[in-house]
Amino acid sequence: MKSENINAEIITIGDEILIGQIVDTNSAWMAQQLNLIGINVHQITSVSDNKQHIIVALDLAYSRADLILVTGGLGPTKDDLTKQTVEEYFGSRMIRNEQVLEHIRNLLEPRGIKMNELNVGQADLPDNCQVLRNSYGTASGMWFEKNHKIYVFMPGVPYEMKVIVSEELIPKLKQHFNTPSIVHKTLMLQGIAESMLAQIIEPWENQLPSVIKLAYLPSPGVIRLRLTAKGDSTDILTNLIEKEGEKVKPLIKNWYYGDDESIEVTLTKLLKANNKTVATAESCTGGKIASIITSIPGSSDYYKGSIVAYANEIKERFVGVSTDDLANYGAVSQPVVEAMAKNMITLFDVDYSIATSGIAGPYGGTTEKPVGTVWVAVASRQRVISKKFSLGDNNRERNIQRSCLNALNELRKLILQELVKNE
Amino acid sequence: MKSENINAEIITIGDEILIGQIVDTNSAWMAQQLNLIGINVHQITSVSDNKQHIIVALDLAYSRADLILVTGGLGPTKDDLTKQTVEEYFGSRMIRNEQVLEHIRNLLEPRGIKMNELNVGQADLPDNCQVLRNSYGTASGMWFEKNHKIYVFMPGVPYEMKVIVSEELIPKLKQHFNTPSIVHKTLMLQGIAESMLAQIIEPWENQLPSVIKLAYLPSPGVIRLRLTAKGDSTDILTNLIEKEGEKVKPLIKNWYYGDDESIEVTLTKLLKANNKTVATAESCTGGKIASIITSIPGSSDYYKGSIVAYANEIKERFVGVSTDDLANYGAVSQPVVEAMAKNMITLFDVDYSIATSGIAGPYGGTTEKPVGTVWVAVASRQRVISKKFSLGDNNRERNIQRSCLNALNELRKLILQELVKNE
Repeated sequence: MKSENINAEIITIGDEILIGQIVDTNSAWMAQQLNLIGINVHQITSVSDNKQHIIVALDLAYSRADLILVTGGLGPTKDDLTKQTVEEYFGSRMIRNEQVLEHIRNLLEPRGIKMNELNVGQADLPDNCQVLRNSYGTASGMWFEKNHKIYVFMPGVPYEMKVIVSEELIPKLKQHFNTPSIVHKTLMLQGIAESMLAQIIEPWENQLPSVIKLAYLPSPGVIRLRLTAKGDSTDILTNLIEKEGEKVKPLIKNWYYGDDESIEVTLTKLLKANNKTVATAESCTGGKIASIITSIPGSSDYYKGSIVAYANEIKERFVGVSTDDLANYGAVSQPVVEAMAKNMITLFDVDYSIATSGIAGPYGGTTEKPVGTVWVAVASRQRVISKKFSLGDNNRERNIQRSCLNALNELRKLILQELVKNE
Repeated sequence: MKSENINAEIITIGDEILIGQIVDTNSAWMAQQLNLIGINVHQITSVSDNKQHIIVALDLAYSRADLILVTGGLGPTKDDLTKQTVEEYFGSRMIRNEQVLEHIRNLLEPRGIKMNELNVGQADLPDNCQVLRNSYGTASGMWFEKNHKIYVFMPGVPYEMKVIVSEELIPKLKQHFNTPSIVHKTLMLQGIAESMLAQIIEPWENQLPSVIKLAYLPSPGVIRLRLTAKGDSTDILTNLIEKEGEKVKPLIKNWYYGDDESIEVTLTKLLKANNKTVATAESCTGGKIASIITSIPGSSDYYKGSIVAYANEIKERFVGVSTDDLANYGAVSQPVVEAMAKNMITLFDVDYSIATSGIAGPYGGTTEKPVGTVWVAVASRQRVISKKFSLGDNNRERNIQRSCLNALNELRKLILQELVKNE
């Protein structure tokens, strides 16, 4: 059976989004969930807590989409207008849902909250909707069908919306629509500019079958190259997308590090799988590499720690950098960063280490070593490799961020080299 | 002269938003910036990388708004359609902008990137727009006027969009529209829950003059309490808002640390003004405190470095924690964290130090020490003070973040105490 092409729209209701007080993270999450079952989100619209505005948005979405997800405005207080709007829009009559009332009571009582009128009112629901159970909260989801189009209303509290989507909405959508298959593959690249990448992979891009769409998703230091295939058979699409992935890999092998994961996840998986430990000695990155590695749960399995040697005296006294090297070459130099990496191996008794020293900016640069000059060294028990990066950027935050990614990537490459050698 | 009521809409272009691969943080930020100059955002719409879809969105926004901000789709690659769309929509002719070309060259060359056709193409801009300079990137902003309505197109890369908005757009909008006078004052509080704060300041809140609006802007560990006064005279508003700020301060003195600045900025200003140095010894925060402090330009003036003692052996060998204390009390304990802080003073020869040890989660907790248990110690050359935080949260990232803020704030308090004593 040929699958349908389902077009969805998301409408989020709430003044707090429009004044920038909260970032709308709900829409991205819902879009992901819909994509996974092959439903395409055509538009996301954020509107104010205003009945007329909501109705206009519903009408416009109706004219374009098969499925309309709406979040927000379902709280118990006066400024929550969604239920009134729904009543008017679908010509509903409100009826008390005893099952929902019981659920609300069960939620509030253990928290020591006595049910009041507002809470009871949340059990009054439109007679012409199907109720979607909200396991975590008092505002139920509502599913309406009108002229073969589906409208779903959910609360805006993220974890409540999520439980409704996961437990109730997705199974219902799969049953209701004959959704297409969709397969994604995201190749991660580090250390190449978008425009250069585009040029390199152009011949491959031009020969891509039409069912595969390509997107470049750049962020400082990293580009995600996303392939999306949509069709009827997951098997065929997976096959196709994997084949294209393999075809492009030789072109991008100098920058490609993994599929759809951060460089720190790739690196730490590698460390864990090979039972290796690591330590860091950071100057210009100021503890950020340590912080990135330890952001991963369970990092104590392979990460022993860092010496953030911000002052030169700390480089000397704690990382064993020689006074002569500091005097002769400066802190931002190959000898210093190599000594830092090498010494960390013995000091912390680890298999691998990373060291950084550079000028993050925005000031402190010289003609010889402008802002953005960063030396990175990575070491194993056998060797040390160092590399100079000229980031050509005056932005401190980005220079630190990119230095960290570069450093993590250099260690990944060193480990891979050593693994090949030892095989 | 009475100010106008300006209605704005934001349109974000990009399939990556609609498939949920990225969260649209740009819109919230732009909405905040517009709000700060008294422009109201009526709707936010995210549309696909599709010319027809973009045009429909522009038309609809035109029918409702005075100002339309559009981001995304301005990259150099084929999937970036905004410029083509703009060309069609405004009947533009593309002309090479030599100044922009020079700027692109100056951006790329120091990074060792050779200009290619795609880069040069970014200097081709519509003849009927005003170019908004993008200091950080190669895609310029574009300002169009059509039937007294303003359209602004900007790249979707957040830091590029932000620099265009701050440096170019906001000044231009202030000049173009007769926006009302708006005065903000943001009081920063650390270590208090929103609901408790609301209760404490209720009497003050109730007596606020009607031209002042109050907003609670909570984020993990910090609440920004923002007062906004809107009217015609900046002087009168400033006076009014300062008076109210002084009135509330006695009520919030236990948590208030400064005006509209992060705790690390407040702390490091204090260090710098008093010519003091600091070092850190981090376990559960894994280098994040170091990273936060060194995110501030010039931090080498007062920050010497950190030992990220993730493994217990590092705590013993490098921070001088006794094997007995670790065995008897565990790494997450008052004796261990106090020893860490105390020892850092002598080890790194600094005036102040911070030490942390805790269970960031999401696993690794026990009944006695559940996830979210964090010990923080701060020390001076004279004393050490420690405090246990029970964050009651399972989220690793938030636990680390809040531990860092708590630790920085404890040091701030210690320094203030010592300054008072020494006076």
